[in-house]
Formats: sequence, structure tokens, C-alpha cells
Amino acid sequence: EPYDIVRGFPKISRTLMLYPSLLKHFSSCKSVVVEEKMNGYNVRVAEVRKHPVALTRGGLACPYTTEKVAGMLPMEFFEDYPLLVLCGEIVGPDNPYVPKDIYGIESLDFFVFDIREKLTGKPLPVMRRRTLMEEYGIKSVRMFGEYPITEAGGSITRIIKELGAAGREGVVIKDPEMAVPPIKYTSSQSNCADLRHAFRFYNDYGRDFFFSRVVREGYMSVEWDESEDDRLRRCQQLGESLLLPLIETIKKKKRGEKITEDSRIRVRSLETVSKFAEHLRHMGIDAIFDAPQPAGDEYLVRIRKINQSTNDKTDAVLSGQMW
Amino acid sequence: EPYDIVRGFPKISRTLMLYPSLLKHFSSCKSVVVEEKMNGYNVRVAEVRKHPVALTRGGLACPYTTEKVAGMLPMEFFEDYPLLVLCGEIVGPDNPYVPKDIYGIESLDFFVFDIREKLTGKPLPVMRRRTLMEEYGIKSVRMFGEYPITEAGGSITRIIKELGAAGREGVVIKDPEMAVPPIKYTSSQSNCADLRHAFRFYNDYGRDFFFSRVVREGYMSVEWDESEDDRLRRCQQLGESLLLPLIETIKKKKRGEKITEDSRIRVRSLETVSKFAEHLRHMGIDAIFDAPQPAGDEYLVRIRKINQSTNDKTDAVLSGQMW
Repeated sequence: EPYDIVRGFPKISRTLMLYPSLLKHFSSCKSVVVEEKMNGYNVRVAEVRKHPVALTRGGLACPYTTEKVAGMLPMEFFEDYPLLVLCGEIVGPDNPYVPKDIYGIESLDFFVFDIREKLTGKPLPVMRRRTLMEEYGIKSVRMFGEYPITEAGGSITRIIKELGAAGREGVVIKDPEMAVPPIKYTSSQSNCADLRHAFRFYNDYGRDFFFSRVVREGYMSVEWDESEDDRLRRCQQLGESLLLPLIETIKKKKRGEKITEDSRIRVRSLETVSKFAEHLRHMGIDAIFDAPQPAGDEYLVRIRKINQSTNDKTDAVLSGQMW
Repeated sequence: EPYDIVRGFPKISRTLMLYPSLLKHFSSCKSVVVEEKMNGYNVRVAEVRKHPVALTRGGLACPYTTEKVAGMLPMEFFEDYPLLVLCGEIVGPDNPYVPKDIYGIESLDFFVFDIREKLTGKPLPVMRRRTLMEEYGIKSVRMFGEYPITEAGGSITRIIKELGAAGREGVVIKDPEMAVPPIKYTSSQSNCADLRHAFRFYNDYGRDFFFSRVVREGYMSVEWDESEDDRLRRCQQLGESLLLPLIETIKKKKRGEKITEDSRIRVRSLETVSKFAEHLRHMGIDAIFDAPQPAGDEYLVRIRKINQSTNDKTDAVLSGQMW
């Protein structure tokens, strides 16, 4: 059987200074469309041998996501458009990668933010994509509006503050024609939530992960021309996001508990569980799967990922080993 | 002429959890000696062809430090002990590497913390070293005392808190015989001062520099079993140490100012200035030397190091470039 090729999803650049970025990056556009950047995991769904297959960022077919999207997406879309790829965010609590309760989703849902040609990666214009999704009853990420470049800065700042207050991640700013690549801009609250999460597993995350998030806070404070009080509040927020989860992890280890990252999946078929366990092993993730619990006509399976490096390092330091 | 070999100074391991480290690391010792770890730069002074030469951490002979130690150290020491190396900290404000005003030193001073055999690197026992230095009128770093292992934890914790309150760095804990390698332990205040300094030049420092200093705060908070209030104060302190200097740097660039790291040297000979400028170039440091100002029978020269990466990155982001 011949190979089937699905082009990777391009990395979206991030702006730290909204106003100058809008002018510089979108200099060829009259307006930009602002859509929500949801906090889940990014998948591409493509038809491969008559079945939709869900590919995660690394280019691996994820058996769990593939089962889930099969139940969410109408197969007619791929029958009509076999050469298009749906790029979207998988969001919700039954989520083995990025479980979040912030969207009021009961289990898991899929929100399209991009449609691209399978082979070339060429994207559809924003409104064309959204209309097409509506026709097939497939959800799109929220669209806040289309703004003239000169007004976009103020609108996006308001949107980001509102999203942040609701614990949501941020926005992606797009050329309506998708000729210019989109850029992302995220809230301080989401930034700090990332840090809180990562510092629980401090030795398993890359040093860059922490550093870049601290730097984002600095630029936002300057762009918003914050008062002394707001600046100090931001410092407190940042310090707590770094230290409190770290302290909690050290204390947990001191009590002899294991540091694990807990999540759950909800499946129809038990075969998906073993396939997904194999998938995690393949990704180099060490995880314990609890026994499946029946839930209606499905099963819930709790997964505890072992962050080995954080466990080992913390044990070593607590026992008096040098850093 | 044949080569002369001076062994490098071994890296001193750091403890993040004082009590267990004392028991584990010094299990073969009855007691430990605690000396101050001063915040300056580490040099080895050795006799090379009848002259004392000062070597910095990278193994380079520093022409400025060599001129300074020639005026501070009695040459008789090296006449009597040509095969010993004085390892010490160069401290004070006339300091091109780590200028600090915290020690009440007017210009620059040299404090010995180790004496080692030139070729083998074998160290002298602590008291033997201190007595020898006294005989030659050479300063040693402050010694707090010798403590039985079982009492050292409490004493060192008290010392570290006092040193921290005075803005000082910390201590080095030593086997009196120097058979077991020494370990270092530093104050939170010094840790945060490092971060404040480094975040002014955020893109010129390594990511590890930031990360390891955040982690130290976490372990200290757990070992000291801090109250909720103390913990939150530590978070505020940490957040401010990261964000405020970063914000200041971004604002400075926004006003069109250059980000530089300022220091000064005080020399007898103008030849030392040009030799030192060459030395910095050799180390890959980009610096502007102001015109020498006469000061008594010496000259003061202001040096502004250009942190090119921080300047360039900040300019780029402010002009709307993506991160």
C-alpha cells in the first residue's frame, strides 16, 4: 500500500508586543480576524484509507483521538473533501494530554481553527472555512470579529483581558485571506497557569519553558504601561506560579508520595485503551493505567503519568545529594 | 621557555537541603568548619617566573587582577612557597567582573579561602592555611567557627539568615582536614540579587541560571518549614527579582537607551588598561572603556559592557518582531 502524506501544522509565531506586531506583521492586510486560541491539544484530522485519522503535533496518529473524532465528525465531510485536513483543538476534561475544565465541556470536544490542503498545507480563507464547517455541523473556535488594523490593538487588548479573567488562553490573529501567517497572543493568567502546572514537574520541563513565560510577563507589563500596584501584583502572581507548585511537589515527596500527572480518557472500545497505552510508551511517556470503570456504554480510565526526572531529582536532593 | 602548570580550581557542589547534606556529605567527619563565601570573583594566584600571576575561573591570566594582587600580596610568600597557589575572592567596587559595595571595601581586596599545591591541586587543611596567611599578613575569608556535625545545621541556618539580611552571599562548609570536598550554601537574598542582576540582561544569561535559582528558593522554603505568610513573601520577593529588572530594561530600550553593565577599574599603569581591554576582547566581551580619570597616583577607568543579545532582542520585540 502506498504512503499517504499529511503536511505538518506550521508553528504559529507569538507576539509579546501587540501594537507594533500588528503593524509590522500584517502590513499587507487592511484588517485581521481574531479567533480564540483554546487550551487543549492540537490535532490534524485527515482521511487516510477511507477513515479519519487524528495526528498530534509530533506527527503521530493518536488512537484515542482517532476514536473520539470518529464519533464527533460527520464522515461526509471527508467523502466530499478527501484532500482537506481539519486542524483543530481537542478540549475538555477527558483529555490525556491537556485536561481542562474551563470550557464547560462535559467530556471532550473538537473545535476547528484551520483547514488546509493535505499535500500542500495551503490554508482556506477564514470565512470560507467557518462557513464550510457550519454546513457540516462541525464546531469552529469562537470568532471575536474582524477589525481594521488600526483598531485591532484596542479590541484585542480588551478581549485578552476578558479571556484571561475567565482563565482562558488567548487569541490567534489572522489575515482573513490566510495569505500572511497567523500570530498568537495569550493572557497572563494562562501563562501563569502553564507555569503552575510545569513547576509541579519542574525537572521534567525544559528550561526554556520557564524562561520564555517570565519574559512574556515583562513585555505585557510594559505595553500596558502598568501602575506600580499592578506591576507588584504581577510579580506576586508570577512568584506564586513558580514557587507554590514547586514547594507542594517537594513536600509531597517528603511525605513519601509519588509525583504524577493525572488525567483520564473515556473510550467505547477497550482495544483503544491498550492501543493508547502503546502510543504513550512510543512517545516515551511512563504512565500507569488504572482498571477501566464502566460509565454508561463507555469506560473511564484514569491515567497517571510518572514524571520520573522530577521524582528522582527531588528524592535525591531531599536525601542530601548536591544539586 | 618551558610551560608552567597551575591546576584548575575544582567546582564546589551546592546543597539545597542543608541538614541531610551535612549528614550525607560529611559522614566521615566529626566536625565542619564554616567560612564565608564572598561575592566577587574567584582567582588563583601563583608564582610564574618569579612573578605572581592571577588566573580567573576560565584559566586566563587577568592583567588587571595581576596588577592588583602584586600590590596586595607580600612577594615573600611565593619566595618561601613557590609551589603553593593562593585561591581567593577579589571583592570590592573597583571590580570589572562582579562589582559589589556590600563589604565596606574602598577599592578592591583579596581574601584567601584555599591554598593548594600548584601541580596536584591538593589543599592545605583549613587551620594550617589560615595560620600561614596570618604569618604573611594576607587576609583570609571570615571563619564563623568549627561545629560538630550534629550541631552544624542549626548554626549554619542562623549564619545564613544573618548573612542574607546583610546582603551577603553565604558560606562554604569544609572538612577541617580538606579530605572531603567542601560544599556551598547561599542565602535567598543573594540568590534574588543574582536574579535581579541577570534579568537586566535577560537574553545574555543562560536559561539554567534562572531555573536553578528558582529551584533553590523552593527547597529553602520547605527545609525552613515556612509559614503561609513567609512563603508568600518569598514569592513576592522572587517575582520582583525577575520582573522588575526585566521591565526596567525594556523601558530603557523603549526610551532609546543602550543596556550596559557598568563597572570600573583602578590602575597604576595605563598599560594595564590596554592589556585588560585586550583581555576582555579575548573573552568575547564587548565593552566600551571611557577615558582614564586621574585619582591620586592612580587612574579610574569606567567600563561599559554591551550586552548585545539583550539589546538586539529587546529592540526587535519592541519593533513588533515575533519572539
